[in-house]
Amino acid sequence: MTNGLFLSFEGIDGSGKSTQARQLAAALRDLGRDVVLTREPGGSPGAEEIRALVLQGEPDRWSAETEILLFTAARRDHLERTIQPALARGAVVICDRFADSTRVYQGLSRGDLRDTVDQLHSLMIGREPDITVLIDMDPEVGLSRALSRKGSEERFEGFGADLQKAMRKGFLALAAAAPDRFRTIDGTGTAAEVAARLHARLPELFGPAQV
Amino acid sequence: MTNGLFLSFEGIDGSGKSTQARQLAAALRDLGRDVVLTREPGGSPGAEEIRALVLQGEPDRWSAETEILLFTAARRDHLERTIQPALARGAVVICDRFADSTRVYQGLSRGDLRDTVDQLHSLMIGREPDITVLIDMDPEVGLSRALSRKGSEERFEGFGADLQKAMRKGFLALAAAAPDRFRTIDGTGTAAEVAARLHARLPELFGPAQV
Repeated sequence: MTNGLFLSFEGIDGSGKSTQARQLAAALRDLGRDVVLTREPGGSPGAEEIRALVLQGEPDRWSAETEILLFTAARRDHLERTIQPALARGAVVICDRFADSTRVYQGLSRGDLRDTVDQLHSLMIGREPDITVLIDMDPEVGLSRALSRKGSEERFEGFGADLQKAMRKGFLALAAAAPDRFRTIDGTGTAAEVAARLHARLPELFGPAQV
Repeated sequence: MTNGLFLSFEGIDGSGKSTQARQLAAALRDLGRDVVLTREPGGSPGAEEIRALVLQGEPDRWSAETEILLFTAARRDHLERTIQPALARGAVVICDRFADSTRVYQGLSRGDLRDTVDQLHSLMIGREPDITVLIDMDPEVGLSRALSRKGSEERFEGFGADLQKAMRKGFLALAAAAPDRFRTIDGTGTAAEVAARLHARLPELFGPAQV
């Protein structure tokens, strides 16, 4: 394989997507693949600094529009400095959240800014992952998992069950609108059970000759 | 006057626009006006943090596109938190640089990104100052003035005489394209001489009944 492959993992908070992204990266490395595991917001030194600026402080520190601009700036840096160079050398890039998270979280949760997010994406980012794995999850279960953790991103997870439901709906709508790009995996059960479901679909993700 | 007035000052580095903005603010305050003197990048607590992120570090730390996104994020915050509230209470807002500086510096100096800057401005900012005072200046004189100062923005002023010439041309082209908004003032001579030229045009800037 001379061209890289760009995979993103998406899902509501507590869906287990970070665990699955990590496990898939390990499994592909075991198969001898060059894998770059990264995440958003962040994923490059500059983008990590922007991430810190966005996630620290009071929830109303930035308006939704300013937040979208900062996330897009971080994404642009991440794409240029981490993702594109890795793809150019033929690596598999596995990214824990990408533009779909902005579409769902910033586009839906603080007013209807979906058009703004989409136009900004077209103008300044202009590419999607080759494949997006959506870990689908009951919002109540996801929320209780997310709340059992502690972290600097608490404020994004503090919005409650109704928001989690809306976010799930938002992800499923994106998946329905782009069926060629999305692969939706049931996220219920243990991490090993979800990983088994995902790994059973690896040939579908990569093409039979490539795994 | 129940509605505020939004003035920006633009010009190449060393044109004296910051000095003129400050002196105009003082003169208007002497006339009893409520004046908010602000600047870009920065001008609100959040925007100042973004400013620090952009201006510190190596010149190639951010791509031109990421830099434009960060400046636009800072501008959005500045507009929402500082400029719009001041205008709403009827103040005169005097802003040392605004979107025209992004059009000229980021739009021209690192490749031709003028369309990107304009589209991003339409999408995320959507307003211009009521009046923009362009302090026009011989680029060689401006450069030698700018170089005689020291500051954290050195890297923006380190690009040399050819760039200063291109920037001046860029500002003059913007002024020619928006004659209703721009007032071009000759920046040669002492600060007092330039201020005299500017103050002679105050009635034109504010309307005869308002100063």
